[in-house]
Order: sequence, then structure tokens, then C-alpha cells
Amino acid sequence: MTLRQLFDPSGIAVVGASATEGKIGYEAMANAARFDGPVYPVNPSATGELFGSRFVSSVTEIDGDVDLALCCVPGPAVPEVLEECGEAGIGAAVIYASGFAEAGEQGEALQTAIVDVADEYDISLLGPNTSGFIVPALDLRCSFASGAEEIPAGNVAVVAQSGGVGLVLAFQARRQGRGVSAEVGLGNRANVGFAEAIEYFDGDEKTDAIVLHVEGTDDGRRLLEACRESDTPVIAYKVGQSDVGDFAESHTGALTGDHELYTAGFAQYGVPTVDATDDLLDAAAALGDSPTPDGPNVGVVTAQAGPGIIITDRIQRAGGRLPQLTEETQERVDEILPGITYADNPVDTGRPMPEFGEVVTAVAEDDRVDVVLVYELFEAAIGFPIEELDGLAERVGKPVLFATEGIEEALADERQALRDVGVPFFETPERAADAAGALARYAQLREDDRVTDGGELQAGTNADEAVTADE
Amino acid sequence: MTLRQLFDPSGIAVVGASATEGKIGYEAMANAARFDGPVYPVNPSATGELFGSRFVSSVTEIDGDVDLALCCVPGPAVPEVLEECGEAGIGAAVIYASGFAEAGEQGEALQTAIVDVADEYDISLLGPNTSGFIVPALDLRCSFASGAEEIPAGNVAVVAQSGGVGLVLAFQARRQGRGVSAEVGLGNRANVGFAEAIEYFDGDEKTDAIVLHVEGTDDGRRLLEACRESDTPVIAYKVGQSDVGDFAESHTGALTGDHELYTAGFAQYGVPTVDATDDLLDAAAALGDSPTPDGPNVGVVTAQAGPGIIITDRIQRAGGRLPQLTEETQERVDEILPGITYADNPVDTGRPMPEFGEVVTAVAEDDRVDVVLVYELFEAAIGFPIEELDGLAERVGKPVLFATEGIEEALADERQALRDVGVPFFETPERAADAAGALARYAQLREDDRVTDGGELQAGTNADEAVTADE
Repeated sequence: MTLRQLFDPSGIAVVGASATEGKIGYEAMANAARFDGPVYPVNPSATGELFGSRFVSSVTEIDGDVDLALCCVPGPAVPEVLEECGEAGIGAAVIYASGFAEAGEQGEALQTAIVDVADEYDISLLGPNTSGFIVPALDLRCSFASGAEEIPAGNVAVVAQSGGVGLVLAFQARRQGRGVSAEVGLGNRANVGFAEAIEYFDGDEKTDAIVLHVEGTDDGRRLLEACRESDTPVIAYKVGQSDVGDFAESHTGALTGDHELYTAGFAQYGVPTVDATDDLLDAAAALGDSPTPDGPNVGVVTAQAGPGIIITDRIQRAGGRLPQLTEETQERVDEILPGITYADNPVDTGRPMPEFGEVVTAVAEDDRVDVVLVYELFEAAIGFPIEELDGLAERVGKPVLFATEGIEEALADERQALRDVGVPFFETPERAADAAGALARYAQLREDDRVTDGGELQAGTNADEAVTADE
Repeated sequence: MTLRQLFDPSGIAVVGASATEGKIGYEAMANAARFDGPVYPVNPSATGELFGSRFVSSVTEIDGDVDLALCCVPGPAVPEVLEECGEAGIGAAVIYASGFAEAGEQGEALQTAIVDVADEYDISLLGPNTSGFIVPALDLRCSFASGAEEIPAGNVAVVAQSGGVGLVLAFQARRQGRGVSAEVGLGNRANVGFAEAIEYFDGDEKTDAIVLHVEGTDDGRRLLEACRESDTPVIAYKVGQSDVGDFAESHTGALTGDHELYTAGFAQYGVPTVDATDDLLDAAAALGDSPTPDGPNVGVVTAQAGPGIIITDRIQRAGGRLPQLTEETQERVDEILPGITYADNPVDTGRPMPEFGEVVTAVAEDDRVDVVLVYELFEAAIGFPIEELDGLAERVGKPVLFATEGIEEALADERQALRDVGVPFFETPERAADAAGALARYAQLREDDRVTDGGELQAGTNADEAVTADE
């Protein structure tokens, strides 16, 4: 199965398209109509045009190239629609309806029925029970969600078990001034699951990091193996540390499973895990926009001691280390700023100053440092050290992260300048430190992987338990 | 000691005021000049006017009512300035300079010297080694920080050991659309420490919640007793779970001490603790803007299952409970929305709908529920249930928290409407859940307090250890 027809289609059929605002068939058509390729509203009982395209009565009647069907019909109608898709040569479908495997025996039978049809015709099924997906760079917005049309393009692929959480992440990414290469709600994962999505986005040129929202899955082994095979960094957020009872099962038809086993499994397969939606996007920004770090050693430069202490504390708890800087670097810092407040790691300059960027460069060039984290409260008269940061990460081959705080409107231009030179930006000291911690764990997990089994699954390990725990 | 002269002065003297931009004496004067009372620039070697006020050569030469001196002079000059303040009858001073107790023996001697002068004349000293403080409602901005003039008024008093972290919190509060009743950086706490600040803001009509940023203190017992005495809710963020070494001591002259003992101490004295700056402000918003909850039972209403699972998981980990709703409530919900996705706790409506507000009301009126948390992705056609939320918390006597996600510009008006009806608002599912957890812990700690010793300190308890740990 390739997901090319799903995520990069020639044309789209919106089955169950409707002229009634508020209906899923209307909202999905409204969003899909933005696509720069043919989009056909399909409805046997409608005539005329919708968003500039003429209604057709069935996908088999479409005179043109269509790879993808958006099924805006009730669950029981889906098998027949898929049959027609198969006959029309459509290779991918999104099924928004619920009432499938998450909804008891009858729903399970319905899900089996659609998988059988999909198998027969080789159709990739996203869903059922999903809000769909978005690929902003292609203006491909196969979602009925309000606001889907405004999600900007970025380099992080969001692969969420829950369509709702996928949207949560997409909206957050936008609020943070970032974007997504794709936002995908897997829903019930009839035949497109985590593994298939990871494989696709690993090969996607627009994607530099993949983030997973996982409630629970019965194909954990394939998920983990896809993570290990991925050259693109993967970060996972596994929900369900406490007992969320049968509510989760009622959602996407999966038990949330054992949190510790999942975490151990992800770690063994080189995937750092985080514990919140904003952490997930922060870690992705750090991994996606930076050179891969060689190790877990973080060099911190701060213009204020208090946030520096928070960051120091937090990095260590998140799996990073703060090495002592080399004597050479300490001397260099002391030459730049004689009588500096604190010249070891973290380097604390006391307040922002014109030499701040030079200090950052000195720390970035220290051989003991694998990751650089910079914090300074914004001071309008000084600004950020854009010139020194421009190209620094690439030159030293290390991630350089930046966090600040101040009056948003006053620092907006400078923040944009940071973005323009590719410096990942974070909103609070804790979130910057957690992102540095994720980089540190990623480096450590890759290192562990190299020194142990070189990539092969060891029978009887924790990870093996993890992946079979809820099979 | 009363801090009235510090936080509500008749007039201000800026000692060391300077006409040179970038100097602390300039920045502090620029911010102070906004105050709606007399502000005098003091500098023996300057003449003319600064920000519309004529320079005077000494505080003793001021012809007018001045309670507060902002000391923008180097550390060694401070004792003499304070002598003059004492002679002039000034009862409060902010000392920005560093180089006191945080800076070795000589600095310690200097700090002893200024405390001696302050004792003699009964002067309240904020600092040294602080960025100062801000009381937005009085336009009292005794800080040299860039952007201090833009911090809006709110109902949370930020009391931070580090002036830098105080500003971090003030800027965050602004970004979150909230504000502060005061932002205070205690710095070295020469004679104004946590206890004095808590006592003052407990009596401040503008303040509905007090948040503490604590690195470490040698008067932990007084801090905790002030917390217990406070009728205003207090929430604490104790930094330093991991070893931050001597960096912290070099900052405000205090060891970070034992994190677990502090946490236990705060708990025994009725203070919930959190673990990040944004969590601190979220908890304050929940506690400051809501009726006091009677217990830790949270009723959750969500329009999307995925975020609902995240919230359920997270509330339980944060110390809250999700009780089963009464049969009466479940029937009521089922009447409002026949065939609802999930009618127990959380109530999951599947998507936003016009009846959403009615469902929230039903859950809020359930006797088993002490706190209500509502989550819905924003849908433009539906909006938020403003009408039902207006006055709901007061009527049922329970906190009602709200979180959403969507396109910021699209939901801005509706969010403002929520603010106008006093509903605390949160940016992510996790942060809303953590705020609900803080409310639950606060209720539980107050309950524990009532059933045990009614407020008296028990010798030999953990809290006693905590407060004496670094004395």
C-alpha cells in the first residue's frame, strides 16, 4: 500500500456533498474545494453546482482523474460507496462517519465489511471515525473542521489517533507561529495505521519531523518497527497514564494499554516520548529544524539567572546534562565579558547586552556541548543576537534553541527574524528546557541503539512485551 | 512593618536618576514617571528636568510627600542613600544593585549594613538584586525592565524570588490575556521576604490569588505560616528538583534546599504546588476567578473525545477525581442529547452543538461535582455557550473552567465574551486539566487542614523539617 493517492491525489470526489451549511458534506466540500485540482461533489439527489463544480450522481460517473474519495455518508452507506470507488479506480478514501469498531459488535461487523471491500480493490482507508487530514502546502484540506482552511504549512507531520487531538495540535502549531506538513487523524485505523503513516511521511520531502498522538493500538510492533526504520525523527505522546476506563475504548475502539510498556518500547526503538500536546510540538520544532545532536550535553546561555536556574533544573530532569565548559571557553567568555555574573554552565550574563551573541557563539563552539539553549528577556534597546545566530547551528552542527519573554508586539519583528534564520523558538523557560531535554534523549536513544543491537528486535525484551501487551 | 509605603506610596524618589538612555537610572525613571503622584529624580550631579520633573540633589531636599525611594545607585553607595532616606522620612526603598549577600563575604557585610540602617529608620527594603516591582492598577512601575509599562492589571499577585522570573510571569500573564495585581521580585530579601509580601497582598483588595516563585529561603517557617494565615489562596512553584549546584546560590544568595521537604511543607500548610511558570498562572486564574471548590471531584464536559481522554488522564494524575455522575444527571443529559456519544463523566457530546451549554449546566448542577471543566474545539457556526456560562459558577458555587483550540482570530471575540462573564480560560487540554487538578488539591488540602490540627503547627512533622531544613 502506498498512501500517495491519499496524501497527494490527482483529484477528489466528495461523496455525500451537500449544499446545506453545517452538514459534514458541506463543510468537507467547502474545505476540499480549495484544492488545486479537480474536486467533484457527488450526490445522487442533488443537481446544479457546489463551490463551482457540477454535482455528479456517483463516483463511477466522474469523467476525470480522481484518486481520493471523501465519504460524507452515514456508516451503513459506506460499503456500497467504497464498492463504487473501487469500480471507479479510486485508491484512497476518508471515512468520517462513526459507529464502526468503536461502537460494539454491529459496528465491528461494519468495519470488517469496509476493510473487505478495501482489500478487494486495494483502497487505503483513513478512518472511519476521523475528522480527516490536511496537507497545507498542497492546500489539500480533507477535513470538515472549522478553521481547517487556516492551518499553515510547516515541516512537522502530525499523526494523531484522535482526529480531535490532531486538530488540537494543528491549531497549537499555528498559534505558536509554526505550521504542519500534514495533520492526520487516524481514527479507527481500518487499514491505514501508525506504521503506514510513518512510512509515508518519512519519504515526504516536506516533513522533517513526525509526531504521534497514541491512545492505544493492537499493532504496536509494526508501529515501533516503522519508527525505527524512519530516517525522519519521530516523537510520541502516549496518553493514558492513569485509568481512563472504558471512555477511551468508546472513542477509537482501542484500549489505552500499559503506559510504561509503551514508553519503554518507544525508548528502545529510538523514539523520545513527551507528556503534553505543546511538548510534542516543541520537541518536533527542536528536532525538525536542527542538526541532529551528537549527545545529551546542553550548554545554556542566559541573560537572567532566575530563568537560567529553572532551565538548568528542568533540562537535567528531562534527560539532558550540563557539562562544565572547557577552560578555553570559560576564558573566552571572561574575555568577552570581564567580571561576568557566572561564567560556567549556564553562562549568566546578568542582563542582555551587545556582547550576548558572542557569548552564545563561544558556548556553541565548545566541544563538550551538543545542544545550545539561549534564554533572554527581551530588551527593546538590545534586540536578539540575530547576526550571530544566523547560520550558527549549521556551522557548529548542533541545535541552537532560543527562548524569550516580553511584550509580544514589541518582540514580534525580532522573533520573525529568528524564524527567518531558522532558529527554533520557545515560549517559556520550561518549554525550551523540555525541548532541549527531548533532543538530549533523542541523541542518547540513537547512541544506545548503535551500541546494542544495531536495530534488530530482541525477543523477550521490554519492547517486545510492550508491543504484544494488548494484542 | 507594613508595606503600604512600598506598594501604595504617596510619592516616589528615583535616586541615581539619569538622562542617559539604557542606564538603570533612566529606565527606572521612565517607568516610574507614569505614576499618578509626584516623582522626583534625585542626582547631585544633574540639573534641569527629567520626564517633566526637576532634578533634586538629595532626598533630604525634596519638598513634598515621598514614601518610596528607587535606589539606582551602585551597591557601595546604598547605605548612605538609605541614611538620607531615613532622615527624609521615606519608609520604603527598592535596591536594584547586585553585589550583596549573593556575592561572597564582602557583599554579605554590605547587606548587613543596609539592614542595620533600615532597622534604625524602619525602612522596608525590596531587594537588593531585584528588577523591582509593578502595580499596574496604580500605574506604579518601579522596575527598570523593558516592557514593564505594558503589563496589564489583573487580580493575581506575583511574588517571585527572582526578579527575572517575576517578569517572565508578568509577560506570560499578559500573553495569556490576563494581568497581575502586582509583580514583585524579592531578590535577596534583605528585610522584605515572602512572609511580608504574602501578608500585604492578602490584605490587598485588588488581589484574589497569590503566586510564589521560590528558589530557597532560610525563613521557611515564616513563609509557611504566612501562607496558612492568608485568606487569599496561595500557590507555589518551588524550583530545584535536580541539583542546580552553586549557580542558584550565586543568584539570590539562597540554597535551593530540598524540593521534597518544601513540597510537603507547602501541602501541610494548605498550599498547592505546581511545576512550571505557566502552570502557576493557570492555577492562579482558576483559584482567583472562581468560587472555592468544596472537594476534588471534577465533572468534565467535552465536545471531542480525544482531548477528553487527555483531560481525564491528566486530572487524575494531578490529584483530582472524576466521580460517576448521578443517575439523575445522566438521564438529564440523555434527554438533552438522545443517543449521546458518552453520557457519564466525562460527558462527550461528539462535537459542538447548540445544546452544549445545557449539558454543561446539567453537569455543573450535579451534587457529586465540585469543579467543572469544559473543552470544545471552536466551531464558528456554534460559538461558545456564553449565555449558559454567564453566572453559572456563582449560581452553583463551583469553579467552571473552559478550554478550547481553534483559529485565534476567529475565536477572539468569543474568548473575550467568556472573559467578560468571568470564566477562566486555558490554552491547551493539559493546562486546563492541570488547573482543575490544582483546584482539587487546594480543596483537599483545606479539608485535610480542617480535619487535623485546625491550623496549628505540629512539632516534628515533615513541614517542621522542611522549614528548618536550611536554617
